[in-house]
Parts: sequence; C-alpha cells; structure tokens
Amino acid sequence: IFVISDSCHPQTIGVIRTRAEGFGIEVVVGKMHSFNWKEVQGQVCGILLQYPTTQGIIEDYENIITEAHHSGAKVIMSCDLLALTMLKPPGEMHADFAVGSSQRFGVPMGYGGPHAAFFATKDEYKRLMPGRIIGVSKDSQGKLAFRMAMQTREQHIRRDKATSNICTAQALLANMSAMYGIYHGPDGLKKIASRIHDIARVFQKAVQDLGYETSSPESFFDTVRVSCRSKEELQSVLKRLEESKINVRVLDEKSICLSFDETHTKTELDLLIRSFAGRDKGSDLQKIVESLPVPSAIQVRTSNFMTHPVFHSYRSEHELLRYMHRLQSKDVSLVHSMIPLGSCTMKLNATSEMIPISWPEFALPHPFAPKEQMKGYWEMFEELSESLVKITKLNKVSLQPNSGAQGEYTGLMVIREYHKSRKEGHRNVCIIPVSAHGTNPASAAMCGMRIVVVGCDEHGNINVKELEEKAEHYKDQLAALMVTYPSTHGVFEDGILDVVEIIHSRGGQVYMDGANMNAQVGICSPGDIGADVCHLNLHKTFCIPHGGGGPGMGPIAVASHLAPFLPSHPVIPPLHVDPKHCLGAVAAAPYGSSSILPISYMYIKMMGDEGLTRATKVAILNANYMAQRLSASYPILYRGKHGRVAHEFIIDLRPLKATSGVTEADVAKRLQDYGFHSPTMSFPVAGTLMVEPTESESKAELDRLCDALLMIREEIRDIENGKMDKEDNPLKNAPHTADVVSSDNWNRSYSRQLAAYPAEWTRTFKLWPSVSRIDDAYGDKNLVCTCPPLESYVEAEQRVA
Amino acid sequence: IFVISDSCHPQTIGVIRTRAEGFGIEVVVGKMHSFNWKEVQGQVCGILLQYPTTQGIIEDYENIITEAHHSGAKVIMSCDLLALTMLKPPGEMHADFAVGSSQRFGVPMGYGGPHAAFFATKDEYKRLMPGRIIGVSKDSQGKLAFRMAMQTREQHIRRDKATSNICTAQALLANMSAMYGIYHGPDGLKKIASRIHDIARVFQKAVQDLGYETSSPESFFDTVRVSCRSKEELQSVLKRLEESKINVRVLDEKSICLSFDETHTKTELDLLIRSFAGRDKGSDLQKIVESLPVPSAIQVRTSNFMTHPVFHSYRSEHELLRYMHRLQSKDVSLVHSMIPLGSCTMKLNATSEMIPISWPEFALPHPFAPKEQMKGYWEMFEELSESLVKITKLNKVSLQPNSGAQGEYTGLMVIREYHKSRKEGHRNVCIIPVSAHGTNPASAAMCGMRIVVVGCDEHGNINVKELEEKAEHYKDQLAALMVTYPSTHGVFEDGILDVVEIIHSRGGQVYMDGANMNAQVGICSPGDIGADVCHLNLHKTFCIPHGGGGPGMGPIAVASHLAPFLPSHPVIPPLHVDPKHCLGAVAAAPYGSSSILPISYMYIKMMGDEGLTRATKVAILNANYMAQRLSASYPILYRGKHGRVAHEFIIDLRPLKATSGVTEADVAKRLQDYGFHSPTMSFPVAGTLMVEPTESESKAELDRLCDALLMIREEIRDIENGKMDKEDNPLKNAPHTADVVSSDNWNRSYSRQLAAYPAEWTRTFKLWPSVSRIDDAYGDKNLVCTCPPLESYVEAEQRVA
Ligand SMILES: Cc1ncc(COP(=O)(O)O)c(C=O)c1O
Ligand SMILES: Cc1ncc(COP(=O)(O)O)c(C=O)c1O
Ligand SMILES: O=C([O-])O
Repeated sequence: IFVISDSCHPQTIGVIRTRAEGFGIEVVVGKMHSFNWKEVQGQVCGILLQYPTTQGIIEDYENIITEAHHSGAKVIMSCDLLALTMLKPPGEMHADFAVGSSQRFGVPMGYGGPHAAFFATKDEYKRLMPGRIIGVSKDSQGKLAFRMAMQTREQHIRRDKATSNICTAQALLANMSAMYGIYHGPDGLKKIASRIHDIARVFQKAVQDLGYETSSPESFFDTVRVSCRSKEELQSVLKRLEESKINVRVLDEKSICLSFDETHTKTELDLLIRSFAGRDKGSDLQKIVESLPVPSAIQVRTSNFMTHPVFHSYRSEHELLRYMHRLQSKDVSLVHSMIPLGSCTMKLNATSEMIPISWPEFALPHPFAPKEQMKGYWEMFEELSESLVKITKLNKVSLQPNSGAQGEYTGLMVIREYHKSRKEGHRNVCIIPVSAHGTNPASAAMCGMRIVVVGCDEHGNINVKELEEKAEHYKDQLAALMVTYPSTHGVFEDGILDVVEIIHSRGGQVYMDGANMNAQVGICSPGDIGADVCHLNLHKTFCIPHGGGGPGMGPIAVASHLAPFLPSHPVIPPLHVDPKHCLGAVAAAPYGSSSILPISYMYIKMMGDEGLTRATKVAILNANYMAQRLSASYPILYRGKHGRVAHEFIIDLRPLKATSGVTEADVAKRLQDYGFHSPTMSFPVAGTLMVEPTESESKAELDRLCDALLMIREEIRDIENGKMDKEDNPLKNAPHTADVVSSDNWNRSYSRQLAAYPAEWTRTFKLWPSVSRIDDAYGDKNLVCTCPPLESYVEAEQRVA
Repeated sequence: IFVISDSCHPQTIGVIRTRAEGFGIEVVVGKMHSFNWKEVQGQVCGILLQYPTTQGIIEDYENIITEAHHSGAKVIMSCDLLALTMLKPPGEMHADFAVGSSQRFGVPMGYGGPHAAFFATKDEYKRLMPGRIIGVSKDSQGKLAFRMAMQTREQHIRRDKATSNICTAQALLANMSAMYGIYHGPDGLKKIASRIHDIARVFQKAVQDLGYETSSPESFFDTVRVSCRSKEELQSVLKRLEESKINVRVLDEKSICLSFDETHTKTELDLLIRSFAGRDKGSDLQKIVESLPVPSAIQVRTSNFMTHPVFHSYRSEHELLRYMHRLQSKDVSLVHSMIPLGSCTMKLNATSEMIPISWPEFALPHPFAPKEQMKGYWEMFEELSESLVKITKLNKVSLQPNSGAQGEYTGLMVIREYHKSRKEGHRNVCIIPVSAHGTNPASAAMCGMRIVVVGCDEHGNINVKELEEKAEHYKDQLAALMVTYPSTHGVFEDGILDVVEIIHSRGGQVYMDGANMNAQVGICSPGDIGADVCHLNLHKTFCIPHGGGGPGMGPIAVASHLAPFLPSHPVIPPLHVDPKHCLGAVAAAPYGSSSILPISYMYIKMMGDEGLTRATKVAILNANYMAQRLSASYPILYRGKHGRVAHEFIIDLRPLKATSGVTEADVAKRLQDYGFHSPTMSFPVAGTLMVEPTESESKAELDRLCDALLMIREEIRDIENGKMDKEDNPLKNAPHTADVVSSDNWNRSYSRQLAAYPAEWTRTFKLWPSVSRIDDAYGDKNLVCTCPPLESYVEAEQRVA
C-alpha cells in the first residue's frame, strides 16, 4: 500500500494512481493527520506528503513522519522549491525523499511544460536512485572532468526489474532552473520568496478586512485560501475576477485559492482586491504593508543552502552570460557540425520552428487555465493530432507522454487496459527483440509485464522462427510485442508483416517503437505494417531540439480499438477522451510539455505532405550514400535484402580491434580532433558505431564526416602496419586539447600538428576539446557526485572571476 | 548645380536638398527626359536617376546618361538591388555611381530602419569613396587576413575638407543583407525577383481586366501604378482597401501605386484584387497566371553577378548557420569579456531590452504607414523624447539622426538655420578643440563651416586663453563651438562654464558632443553646462548594441531657441515640428532607425531615474578604481583637479616605447592572448590606450583586465631588463594563434605556454585569436579590396565544405 495525503494536488494523485497499477501497488488517499496506522500495520511501503499542501497550507509533518517510520513506511515530501528557502527543509524533518518541480526557478508555465523535476534522497538510498548521476573524474592530464558515473542500470543490466524507464529527460529545463539559482543565489531567492510571501499576506489582510475568511498568515507561503459567506457571494466574486481577467482555483461552492509569484505588481494586487471588495476603490495597500507584523511562520528555515561557490559568483547579466558562454563553448552542437548519432535523429531545428515557443501566448498560460481561454492551443492540439494520425495511419493520438519512453509506457498501459476490457487481463507477456532500446523492457516492466526476449538472425533481423515459437508458447499470456521499425540495426526488415501477423494471430498487440520514424514519414507507416500503437519522438523526427537530454515529447498513436483507453487527466480532460474506459493520467499536465508542441506543428505545416516525404527520402539517401562511401574501409554490419540500409547504419569496429587494438571509443574520441561528435557508440551492438546523417545535412557535410572516418581508417592502418605505436598514437591519446598540443614538453611519437590538425578543415575552424581522455577507472570509483572540497572551488572561481 | 530626376522618391529629394545646402550646391529637380542641358551647360556636377522610378517604372536612361556625360556631369543611379538581378545594371549603362538600400535583402522595414545602404562606383573613383574599405592582407604566418585598408581620410587627415562624417554605420545590417545574398545566391535571388514580378503582373492583368488603367507590364518590376476613372472611384477603392487592411501609396486624386514582395500570398493577392473589383468574388488568378506572356521587359540583365564562391556554398539552414558561427567565433564580444573601448561605452545590452525589436509590431511597419496605425510607435517616440529632454535638461528632441555623427551634422545645421533666421547667416566659424573626435570637424565642414582649432593645456583641458583669443578674433563670424564633455581626455573639465560663456557672449552657439553622456546622466547635463545642442549616442549610453560598427541612433536635443529649426520630413512630419522654420530631412525616415529605439526606451524605463543616476556613478567609480590600480605601473595621462578621472581614462605608453621599444599596438595585440579586446588605441592621443569600463562590469572583471595589463607591464619590464629579447618576445609576436603555439617548429626565445596561457584564467577559457600579427605594409599596398583569384576561394571553400 502506498498512501497519498489528500492534501496533494489532484494531478499528482492521478499520476501516482496510474503508475502504481503497473507495479501492483495499492494506493490509498487519506487524511494524514488522522491516519489509522494500526489498521495497515506493516503494509504501507511509503507515504506522500505535499509541502505546502495543495491549498497552500504549511503543515507540521514531524509527527506523521515519525509515525510512518515506526510503521516501516518511507516518507516522500513533494515540495515547493522556493518555499523551501524559507521553510524547514524535508531532510530536517527526517523525510526520506523530497521531490517536486523546479519550474518556478525561471521556467515559464508553458501550459504544462516542459519543466524539470527534482528528486533528492538520503545518502543511504543514493544507489537506488533512477536516472543518471554525474560524478567527478579527471582526464589523462589530471584535469578535473565530469562524467556520467551511474545511470538507471535496470535498463542495461536488470532490464526486467526496471523501476524507471527514463531516457530523454529535462536537461535543458534543469539547466535553466540551475541558472536561475546561480544568478539569484540563496540570498536572492530568499528575497524573492519573502517578497511573494509579503504580497500574499497583504492580500490576505486586505480580504480579511473585507470580511472574508482566509487561511491564517502564519500557515501559508504564497497560496491563500479564501472562503465566502455564501455561494452567491462566491459567484459574484468570480464574476468580477473574470472581468478583471484573473483566474483563480475554485475549491468548492464557497471557497477559492489564489497563488502569488514575484511577477505580481501592486497594480495587479489592487485590481485583485477590488474584485473582492466589489467596488472601484481598493484597499490602502501601503497602510497594510506598514501594519504587517514580522512573519512568524511555524517552521522557519535556519539552515544554509546553495553553499557551492557557483551560487555566489555571477550576480550581473554580463557575468552570467559569460559563464553560460564558457559552458556552452565546451559543447559541440549542430552549430558546429553534423551530429551523426544513430537512433537520435539529430536533424535541423529550424529557427522559424523555434520562434513561436517564446511567444507569451504559448509560454505563459497555466496548465489549468480555462479551456475557453486557450483556443489557439486547442486548435493546435487538434491539428497536430490529425497530422500525426495521418502520418501513422492510425486512429487517435494522445499528446500527453513527455518522452519516447513515457510513450512506450503509455502505449503498453493502453494495451493492458484493452486486454482487461476484454476480460483478458491475465495477458502479461511482452516479447522484445534482443536489439531493442533499453527503454522498451524497462517500460514493459513498469507495466507489470513479463519480458520474453527474442534473438536476431545473422542479418540483424528478428529471428522469426524463434519469435513464432515463443509467441506460440506464450500464446495465452501474450500481451504485446515491442518492435522498432526500421530496426535498431538500421534496416527495413523484410519480415515485419509476418512478425505482426504472428503476434496478432495469438491475441497479442503490436507496439511499434517510433524512434526511427524519420525513415517512414510519407513513405510507409505503423498503420501499414499493422502496428496497434506507436509513439513518436517529436524530439527526433519532428524537430524539437534534444536540449542535451530533453525536453522531448512522445505522443502515442493508436488503432481505433485502442482509442477508448487513451490517457485522461483529473483536471482538464484531453480531446476525445473516453471517460468510461480511459487510462488515468500518465503526466501531470493534460498535454504534457505543451509549449514545445509548436515546434513540431510548425515543422509539419511548413513542410507539407510533399516536403515530409521528400525529407524521408533524403534521409535514407544520405545514409546509403555514406554507407556506400565508407563500406570499402569499414564493414557495414547489417543491410537489407537489396544491400541498402534505412536512415542509419552500423559500422563494425570489432575486426579493427583485433588487428590494431583500436576500439570504438578510440575512434569516437579521435573524431573530436577532427571536429565531430561521435556516432552512437555500442548501441545496439557492442564494438560498433551507428551513423544517422538525417536529411538536414548537405553532401559536403556528409563527405566531410566520411573523410574524417576514412582518414582515421588510415591512421589505424598505420598502427596495423607498425608505422605507429600501438599505444603512443593519436587514436589512443585522443582527444587532444589545446594545452596538450602547445605544452612545452611534447614527447609523443607523432607530431603536434597531426594531433591537432588532422584534416585541412580544422585549420579554418578548430573545435578544441575541453578535456583529454577521461580516466574511467577513477570515475568508476567516484560513482556518485563526490564534490571536491569547497575551498578548491573558491580558488577556481577566483582564478576565473 | 546638382540635378535630381523628379521621378526619385520624395524623401530622397528631401535629404539631398538638406545635404546640398552645407556644401553650397544648388539643387534642381527636373524631368530628365526633357531636360534642357544647353541652359546649364558646364554647371551641372551630377545628376541622380532612380531605377526603377518612384512610381515603379523601368525607364531607359542610356540617352540621358550620354547627354549628362557630354555636359560634364556625373551620373548616380539610385537602384533597387533586387530589381537589378533582372535588369540591365547601371554599370552597363555607363552610370558613374550606383547607390541604394539593401533593406529588401532580408532586413525588416522596421518603420524606417536600420538598414544598410550600398554605394558602388567605377574603378577610377575608388579613391574618392567615403567610408571604410577592407582590403586583403596576410598575417606573419602568411595566412590570408582582412584589414581596414582605407577609411574616410578626411576625418583624420584633411579634416576641414571632409565630404563625409560617417563613423557608426550599418555594419550589422550590411551583414544581414550579405547573409541573405549568400543563402539565396544569384539564382535564388533571380527566382525571388521573378516571382515578385509575376505577382505584380498577375495583379496588373487582373485590375486591367477590371477596367483600370495601369502601368504596362513591360515597364515595371514590382510596383504597379493604377489609375481610376474618377476621384469617386478611387475613394471607394481606398475605402475597400482600408477595410481589407491594405495600405497603398496615393499618387494623386485618381491614382495609386502598389508594390509587391516575396512574402505576398495568393490569399493576399486575391483580397487585394477583390478590393478593386468591389465585389466578393475575385478574379481567377490561376487563369491569369496561365495566360501571362513571357516577360519582355525592355532591359533584361544578361550579365552574371555574385560570382564569388561564398554566394554558392551555403544552401541549407545548417550550412549557413555553421558559416555564420565560424565567422562569429573569430570575434571577441561582450559575451567573452569586458570591452574597454574608451569613448565607445561598451556596456551591457540587456536581453530584455533587445526582445521587443523582434516583435512584428516594431519590426514590420512600413515607414510611411498611416500614423493612426502606428500609435504604439508614436507613444514611444513621445515618451522617449521626454526622457531625453529630462536627461539633457534641454527643450526638444529630434529622433531623426541615425548616428552620433549624423546628430552632429543635424545639430550644426540647426545652428546654421538659427543664425540665418536672425539674419546672421554669415556666421560660419566653428571652433573645435584639437582633441575632438574626427567626426566633429567633418560634420562642421559638411555644414559649410570653417574650422578653427584650439589646443589643450598640459592637463588635457581646453586652452581657455587660446579659445578666448580665437573666439574674440572671429567674434563676428563665430557660429559655434563643438565641445565634448567630459572631454575626450576622460576628464570633467573645470573650465567648461567659462568656455561656454566665452562662446555665448560672442554670439556663438555651443554644440556638446554627447558621446560621453555615460558620465553625466542623472548627475549633470548639457543643460547644466549651458550647451545649446547635443547629440546622444543611443548606441553608447542608451544600450543599443554596436553591431560591429552600427546600427546606432544619434538623436539631438536642443534648447528652446533652437527647437523651431529641428528637422522635418517630406512625407511624415515628426512630432512638434515647426513647418515655418524647420530644417529639411536629414534622413530618409522621419524617425531614423525607429525599430531600435525600443532598446533605449526599455533601458530608460527599466532603470528609472534612480537607476540611471546610479549607473553613471558606478561607471565613474569603475573608471577611477581601474585608474587607481593601474597608476603605479602606467602613467594616467590626464586627471581632473582632484586627481580623479571621469568614466574613462588614458594610459600613456609612450614612455615605455622609449625604454623597451614596445608600442601601444604591441600591448593591444598582446591583450588578445590574455582574452581581451584592446582599449581604444591612439585616440585622442597617439601612443596611448583609453579605457572605459562602464557600469556593467563587476569588480572581478575590472580586476581581471587590470591583472592582464599589470602582467603585460611585467613582460615589458623583462624587455627593459634585457631578460627578454627586444624583438623575439611575446609582445612583438602577439597575438599567438593556436597553429603557432602548436607548430612542430617552435624557435622563439620564450615558451609556448607563456605565449598562449599567460594568465591562469586562459586555462579555464581560452579565446584563440584567428590570425597572427597582420602585415600592415603588405596591407597598405593592397589599399582597396583586391580579391584573390576566384580559384583560390573555390579551393578554400572546398576545404571548408
Ligand atoms: C529506439 C529507441 N526507442 C526509444 C527511445 C526512448 O525515447 P526517449 O529518449 O524519448 O524516451 C529511444 C531514444 O533514444 C530510442 O532510440
Ligand atoms: C567623442 C565622439 N564623438 C562622436 C562620435 C561619433 O558618433 P557615431 O559613431 O555614432 O557617429 C564618436 C564615436 O565613437 C565619439 O567617440
Ligand atoms: O571612432 C570611434 O568610434 O571612437
């Protein structure tokens, strides 16, 4: 049993209910202050408290937490990050986990997202954390370097025990919020928080003076509950608020709830209070301000936070700008060169597609703003859904899932509901090819499915015979097949129709992983191959930029028999949702990260049907062109029947390791010296690189990458021939930083110039790597973020500043 | 006499009339086809033709040009750049000069600007060109490098013979237009042009079919003249156009003129034609398109253009983006470090100030759109003017001048009008201190003034005694004094009130150069010191970014007695203009570069009075802090009475040249190795550097620049001491590129690491110079742009591509 306090947000309760199902966890929503622990003794695994509550109340949770711990339950607190700058933090109340959204740290509401969440826990649970943890390591020169030290290992190691399937996350948004924190620092944040608290208190005092009943000023941070004397009074207040264009949350027939933030002005506050006063003259705000007592909240924060020097170093726009620029200039991006990451579809994110997301009409709305005020958004939802229906040749679309993996999860949950609705709820076997992306089994596991793996034949195709045997074996339990098309091996599998038929004829549903849709749009479709569900990574095929690891959007499209089960939402039901059958919410906002949908919308509208089809053709052509040019030097691991690849292809480096000792990692690092980002490494096959050029690259750029890889092949040949040493060579030592090649002591067996300028184009534009080869062994020993002592940062900052 | 064809734009005629006055050139506006050359034989210096004409007609000018040349007159053609992709070019018609705007190459109208103009001439006149010419040189490693080869020399050498005073120009806009050309290339441009021509022809055919009289399709490019049968008919067409929200140009009681561009859609064309049809059904456009004959314009272009490979290399958004990025990454900007350019005020250009300029409401309006449609703009003009009046403590502001120098010119012309209005038109002596910026005498010369120079005393102050003598000597001819305050020497001159009094008491007016207003705003003002006119560089004090050489805005503020003479405009008269007395137009748009005014407006509104004053104080504090830190190592050339500088200061390097051979240029170049842009070099005093930190920089950044300069001082000391060689040292060889410090042959007497990483912070973030020391001698021999043979570009491009 997992217990959720009834003072959590309804969307939080909704999402947890859905999520708990897959894991078979029972959810109870209750009043925590009067919770009867005796009754459920030993059965509660955890509880969720919201701090402050959904109605804005700062409750004292210490007793509850003690009780929960006594009963063996862990405690999660869902927190308002800004409130925590003033309030006693969850850790000091002995909560086990703190979670929440960092949206209010400088990220627009965006009608629901994207926003980054945060998740924090005690040291003792750190190894159970999902997601990725960045740790400190050093490079071959002993320089500080950061490196992924740990990631959701279930996806890679214990696939069927996965508790998380996150791949695309919210990196960009996390960075935005971090920059907000860096700019303001703890003192600035406290100042912002206390100004907001004061606005809320001024409002509370003013409406109290007008005779309304309110929450008491000691018990709230930014959110005030106001109760009217009668339904009629509330109605007339609401009418005046509407006239003043102010939205509030209605709690019940007599009460509403209002939140404040740092952007609110005196004029707005005045307008608001006048709506309560029901007359033109407002209150004398100045007088109220002067009469405000010193705040005496029950649980004031006394401890420090954000003590790292980075939160104390950049206090002006120029300083922050330059800090961001310094960070940015360590990255290689599409601004520099093509990024051939297979399976990632690093295509053009056109400026004209990006512009609308900063329009206030898209950026600012609250996710629960009345639908009538959001006509533009809803028109876009409708049109975008229609386009995606047309592209997939399926029947209906849900725009709720926030990533491909969340789409997988949603799609599988929809399949689960479908089976249940037909009284086949026992169907729980999910067949997944061995080459699948790690998110596939993780998603299946999160839906409570049992994973059955099928292998591939020597051409990289699904082993149809094995599939048929397993499908037959599990035919009574068969829930679904997850299949990627074209396959993760970069090939349009010939047998796909047979594969689908094998599953369908045994009562299973077919989930198509849409990561490779860039090879399908306009020329074939999930509908064509007979898939029942698929997700679309809008951040791949449909031009949302990857943001260094998110945001993304993973809408799903389903065939008509699955349409009734698409997800709903407890506050704002999405379009065409069937309230009788629907799955609950899979995300806190009805349309997920709504505010980035305009990017895909613009792309689809600007390209038109013809343009989309042409893009697919060019993407496939580009991949085949590159495969062809490279094939004399590197084996192309898999090809289709006619010797062609799809929109990406795998080059096999394993033979070279045997002859030269050079690994895929060496080639990937050496590409940095040539100014390129590496292709996808060792996915889906260890010891290989997977190249996806996309349609956005010119022939000149494709040739440049081919040239780089061919020149590297010659470097490898020199090792094979013994012309270069097996260890002391530019591949093993790659990448070469500017420090290294300009050092006063160079004792390598190859020249500085070969190290730094292996290709002519690097003379015109040289992209210097910022660190040398990273010490993986050292990094592995620092699995979780081990921060160096603060003093070393202070010194470093002083040197920079 | 200068003759302007009456088929030029009215604003062009207006600006030339004003401009000609200062030079004492008589302007005649005439019909060129029937021009009586006999009457003025030998007296006409030049003529201006517009191509196509203001009403869009492509005239055959060849006979006129021949006639003009026979009469000894030069021919200028004002051209539409896009039309020239289809039409016989001016050069082939033997015109001497071609000029025009490059706005339509991808730059928004912006209610008048900013836009870049172009100016082209025959090889034989190249040395007479105003402005700056960039020539090809090479660096010390023999690498290709560009360098300013020639600039308006009058400002530096023949100050009082100046024909141009341009300093801040339109660099950014020129780059924007260049990128438009680079992206589309000649074929793309021709395609755009012919599409526009076709739209115009479809329109012309449709309204002709409706019974209207129009210009003939062979005679126009994009602009069609339409005549109605009666005044009433025109009125009803205009009414319908207004209802359709379409603005047109009204020529006379019965005719209007319409222009088309590549953004126009079929829907818009249809709406337009329906306004002429006076009914809901439009014409069958498809049918018209099909029936269009092949265009048979009188003068079709047959010659090639844009043959340079750069116009053929970047045909996709990624390619262009990367090209722009490669160019950008050669520059040091405020994103990297403070830019201490004295007299330039390189302060923060805050993002929030910049955002509004891309709003379509600011970016898109046509400069002559009806005023009623432009209420927001006019409100901003009014409020911004009021703020500037308040800041200057003068009486009225003109927002027309596009730069500081254009403000100087306008201010002096206003003074000239003032003297004329008092029957003192003979006053034409302008006194200018020797330390003045080159634009001051150039502006005075362009107003037909005689320049009298006064010297400075040993503290850098105006030699008041000399001033008084000269003022007394010229008292009957004295028109004005131009004075910079605080002075270009970075000091608040004590004697300023005396100086002003000396001029006023002799009937002269005082022009204050406002380049240094960043030291005044909120603490003193031109009004306080008794100035009669001043300009304000909005691109310095008021946050418009410099754009690498423009755009800028140079509004002038005047005392009340000068207010009646502020410039007007022939099409849209600016606010509060006195039609009886006003000067004509000084720029083609009534409010100059209107669309960048929101930047200054935002700055002033966001800062408020208090913020503005605080900024000035911090700017002065920062300069004094730096001067203090540096003074032990470098002499500060001038200080005020109390030992303080204003918002900038000069460090004197001449003594070091004597002891070490190191010049100001060596220090400037060496600063690049430290990651800094040089301070202003040798202005206003040769052999010095002038540092202006501005209020936007943190103490940490000021210290970093001080540290760099102090470390350089130690390097110089090593030369003085003989520890380093006089030639083979990091100063003489600066800047050091990455190629150089990583070369396989290093034979300098100092280390690579000292060359590249002289300061610790360069390890955290190294800004690599893109070229080594430039060969000035070689560059001087290539005074004007001598392009290398095209083949060498092709090779270079292939290498890059
Ligand atoms: C084949 C495949 N499936 C699923 C995913 C997961 O998508 P997301 O990262 O949007 O969660 C990816 C992501 O890279 C993928 O390549
Ligand atoms: C002292 C001084 N006066 C006048 C000007 C000319 O201003 P603008 O460049 O805007 O034409 C400058 C420009 O730098 C200047 O420094
Ligand atoms: O010329 C100057 O820009 O100062």
